[in-house]
Amino acid sequence: MTHHHFQPNTYWNSFGSHPPVLHIRHDDTVITSTVDASGLDQAGQKVAPGPNPETGPFYVEDAAPGDTLVVHLDALAPNRPTGWSRDVIAPHILDAESVRGLPESARIQWDIAPDRRTARLSNPPDRLEQVAFPLRPMLGCLGVAPEDGQAISSSTSGPYGGNMDYRGTIAGVTFYFPVLVPGALLHLGDGHAMQGDGEIVGTGIETSFNVQFTVGLLKNHPIHWPRGENADYLFTLGNARPMEQALQYATTEMLAWLQSDYDLDVRAASLLLGMCVEYEVGNVYDPAYTMVCKLPKRILSEVRRK
Amino acid sequence: MTHHHFQPNTYWNSFGSHPPVLHIRHDDTVITSTVDASGLDQAGQKVAPGPNPETGPFYVEDAAPGDTLVVHLDALAPNRPTGWSRDVIAPHILDAESVRGLPESARIQWDIAPDRRTARLSNPPDRLEQVAFPLRPMLGCLGVAPEDGQAISSSTSGPYGGNMDYRGTIAGVTFYFPVLVPGALLHLGDGHAMQGDGEIVGTGIETSFNVQFTVGLLKNHPIHWPRGENADYLFTLGNARPMEQALQYATTEMLAWLQSDYDLDVRAASLLLGMCVEYEVGNVYDPAYTMVCKLPKRILSEVRRK
Amino acid sequence: MTHHHFQPNTYWNSFGSHPPVLHIRHDDTVITSTVDASGLDQAGQKVAPGPNPETGPFYVEDAAPGDTLVVHLDALAPNRPTGWSRDVIAPHILDAESVRGLPESARIQWDIAPDRRTARLSNPPDRLEQVAFPLRPMLGCLGVAPEDGQAISSSTSGPYGGNMDYRGTIAGVTFYFPVLVPGALLHLGDGHAMQGDGEIVGTGIETSFNVQFTVGLLKNHPIHWPRGENADYLFTLGNARPMEQALQYATTEMLAWLQSDYDLDVRAASLLLGMCVEYEVGNVYDPAYTMVCKLPKRILSEVRRK
Amino acid sequence: MTHHHFQPNTYWNSFGSHPPVLHIRHDDTVITSTVDASGLDQAGQKVAPGPNPETGPFYVEDAAPGDTLVVHLDALAPNRPTGWSRDVIAPHILDAESVRGLPESARIQWDIAPDRRTARLSNPPDRLEQVAFPLRPMLGCLGVAPEDGQAISSSTSGPYGGNMDYRGTIAGVTFYFPVLVPGALLHLGDGHAMQGDGEIVGTGIETSFNVQFTVGLLKNHPIHWPRGENADYLFTLGNARPMEQALQYATTEMLAWLQSDYDLDVRAASLLLGMCVEYEVGNVYDPAYTMVCKLPKRILSEVRRK
Repeated sequence: MTHHHFQPNTYWNSFGSHPPVLHIRHDDTVITSTVDASGLDQAGQKVAPGPNPETGPFYVEDAAPGDTLVVHLDALAPNRPTGWSRDVIAPHILDAESVRGLPESARIQWDIAPDRRTARLSNPPDRLEQVAFPLRPMLGCLGVAPEDGQAISSSTSGPYGGNMDYRGTIAGVTFYFPVLVPGALLHLGDGHAMQGDGEIVGTGIETSFNVQFTVGLLKNHPIHWPRGENADYLFTLGNARPMEQALQYATTEMLAWLQSDYDLDVRAASLLLGMCVEYEVGNVYDPAYTMVCKLPKRILSEVRRK
Repeated sequence: MTHHHFQPNTYWNSFGSHPPVLHIRHDDTVITSTVDASGLDQAGQKVAPGPNPETGPFYVEDAAPGDTLVVHLDALAPNRPTGWSRDVIAPHILDAESVRGLPESARIQWDIAPDRRTARLSNPPDRLEQVAFPLRPMLGCLGVAPEDGQAISSSTSGPYGGNMDYRGTIAGVTFYFPVLVPGALLHLGDGHAMQGDGEIVGTGIETSFNVQFTVGLLKNHPIHWPRGENADYLFTLGNARPMEQALQYATTEMLAWLQSDYDLDVRAASLLLGMCVEYEVGNVYDPAYTMVCKLPKRILSEVRRK
Repeated sequence: MTHHHFQPNTYWNSFGSHPPVLHIRHDDTVITSTVDASGLDQAGQKVAPGPNPETGPFYVEDAAPGDTLVVHLDALAPNRPTGWSRDVIAPHILDAESVRGLPESARIQWDIAPDRRTARLSNPPDRLEQVAFPLRPMLGCLGVAPEDGQAISSSTSGPYGGNMDYRGTIAGVTFYFPVLVPGALLHLGDGHAMQGDGEIVGTGIETSFNVQFTVGLLKNHPIHWPRGENADYLFTLGNARPMEQALQYATTEMLAWLQSDYDLDVRAASLLLGMCVEYEVGNVYDPAYTMVCKLPKRILSEVRRK
Repeated sequence: MTHHHFQPNTYWNSFGSHPPVLHIRHDDTVITSTVDASGLDQAGQKVAPGPNPETGPFYVEDAAPGDTLVVHLDALAPNRPTGWSRDVIAPHILDAESVRGLPESARIQWDIAPDRRTARLSNPPDRLEQVAFPLRPMLGCLGVAPEDGQAISSSTSGPYGGNMDYRGTIAGVTFYFPVLVPGALLHLGDGHAMQGDGEIVGTGIETSFNVQFTVGLLKNHPIHWPRGENADYLFTLGNARPMEQALQYATTEMLAWLQSDYDLDVRAASLLLGMCVEYEVGNVYDPAYTMVCKLPKRILSEVRRK
């Protein structure tokens, strides 16, 4: 249960089997920071090239393929009062017929006021002068190294996690990742002061973050896709294109979870999901999209345990 | 502002230019009923073949192509204490590799207790004996007649609405539909005592309903996809396959709405949506899927009006 | 084996259970004509509104749901020396990022010279002055009435056929359609003097046609999707969006065909298809796309028959 | 114009910036070999783990990002008389409803007779005893290293090429790849004695190959997706999921090619493609699918050059 204070000075633009920056153990806590999606740090200095420079990877002792890595997000918050975003919805989020006249997206600045829990546009366009956007600090990127010696761009996602841009990646949430390489090799980055579902302008409010997390390890506990839980929900994340495929992966992972951990057969699990499932949309901007399959814990609490 | 009590005795299995059952006017209210997806009425009698027999169509006087039909759902509730559902997630909602061992879905009975606001399985599978499912009465089908003389099965959806299976189709909500034929020709049906997102077992808890709605008409107000609003959100619905296409249509319609009714240019509207949009998943079981694009009214309330 | 000369004077913009224009029988031949996609006839007169006005429907005596309708295309050819097309690739056929600068598509005229087997642009753009396009006359629309009383726009397709825009719909080819309503109700239209795969500008060279076809009936022979054969191939057509779904339907139909008519088990049929299948792209412009799954007859000729 | 004889002894399971095995130059020819998809070499010995062990990478002197690498396939042929395949169509190629009863796919052996230009099943299933499958030797994998330090599994594909499984990857064809890293880093592997479109059983007839290729370099000639040409066609390859996206990328690349190299504006290029384009289906089994957009050289030969 060591607390590590780790100040990164190298960043990776891919999730891969890169040299670990720190070795940690089950129950260890790490207090560290992330730079923004374009590599700007707390001081607004460019310390890494984009896309999405990642802090890490952190090597978790004893983690081996077939295990599950537990990552509890203890705390996360922007560590500078500025951020940036894009300002036009991406063409592939719109009906193709409507794209002809779409202007080019530009980079636009934001002022972040953590005390007021709001962000405001530094130079707001007409009519948005008074709008205070409510902060909801989250990490766009979280995951482990993929298998087979791969190193995959931090601008996409997969079974290993990655750039999922799920709005639920906030403080207090626990994630579970399949361990695919020795040490798991945890990466994190791409903090957003806030973001709408899907990251449809291609960014949230991009800024640098302070992050504290605690890891755990479930030995011999294979999972296929990232999972998580918060106070109210179990959830699973499928990362693929098209959206149907992402939804299929997430739903299949939830069905497996209910069968293995709640002793439900496929019909009972189907009935719970059929009547109570909720889906959320993660990233729909990147090469892989993210769909989140959620089941309320309240309904699960009424299931008779063996 | 006439109140019509209408007892249906014919039902259609398609949204189309069928003979109207009632002529109504702007501000009129209709109190009527719907049978369940398989044609069982309040008494549990089969009065129509499936799929999704529709009540209507209601002819709205003066409604013409280019107008918008307003439909406010005043009240809706199951009118019998029983319902039914399927009990296995549909194969196309799951990873194809996991389908080999999937059992066939069966029809299963439910007991509905409106006073307790719950539904229970009549013969619950192992471990679900104690689960009380919280009612959330909604209509699976709502829409107008499509253009070009088409009659399209009530088991799918399109720009005219249809079988969208959106969980937000509850009492208190206002929908807007494009008028595509003279009289608009409103159809409704397919009530669910409750349902998870996506209708992933192919049904909600299917039952017959009492429904009260009030119509309005926006003359010379063309829209392209169904819209709606409730106390907290504006929303738009895209109905297409794949999900991306449904999301594109819904997002394009919301962007148009913000530009036309809130005097926002594409950048300002993009920024609001980029940071605040929320998506919900309607039907992902039918030939066409439904994606719902939502914007909180709270953020819109801070936009400076011209 | 009657020969019917049928001169149409009504046209439908949907495939549906419309009043039949002619009753025909197994082995009967029909000699008729079709107007172009915008309703221009042999004389260049507008005789029907678009989209894709259909000749028919033809009622085939004794055809009942569960049967297969056989349609042999005896002859088809443009019956006027002019045609028209669109001139810019549709936005949804291109990478969304490339659409911003795309010009609006315009209608452009063609001269058709059947004797030289070529078409030329009436006012060719720069550099295309010398290009002679080789004629390949085909029907864009062919199919029967869909089930459940539906009437579906002739600008899309489904299990009943419809606007499939398959380049292989030429003279000498035999099609098989599932009979979904009494009489089958055959519709045809949308002739193209030629067309590239996918109809990616939204049209081929649209013109009016003379068509001769002969029908047959396979009683109690249910199929799920259109099938066909020519001298070299068996083929099946899946009509759906996205393309994967169309490909899945077509492949599943071919697998069923090999199992039922060639006594192959799923492994043997899979091996033939795995090593020898060829796919063609039908329409990828409409709401439903068409994928064609083909198996060379030559490889089938080596299969040992029971 | 050096001829290099290169005997590989290391293989990579990803396309990435791995240490080069050989430095070559513009106009150099390489004579080498590839092992099969599971790592079996000419002697049937397992010399590498799967998936798809790649020969290379070959470093092309002076190749830099923004250039185009030319790869002419001079010769390629199986170098052993045996191969293997899977024997059941993959579930995601079939309608989900039809997957429930599908048997598990097994590995099955083939005998390859290059002199007779045929392959036969070593233990054919019932009815396939007499079937001689016609050889069509091709490479399933061909490509360069992706950008941003990525290493991407050889069981998928992207802008860099990869596991495209295009049946047209045969002797006599010239490919063009975007150079994304210094030296381009050419990889090749995954030879198939033959294969149907799409690789729908998950394999072709997998075997080891002898390969001869010659490279060239087009300096300052950026392209976005792989291109190629043979005697009859120009073609471009889009690698993505879903198929629409792959088709969009391929079509956009072809449109760019016609505009840049044939001085056609977007309307003229659209007209050629609209009336003459042909699509082929590459891999539809892997995470990324491949669509091939082809234009006959014959029609291009009639375009007036500036």
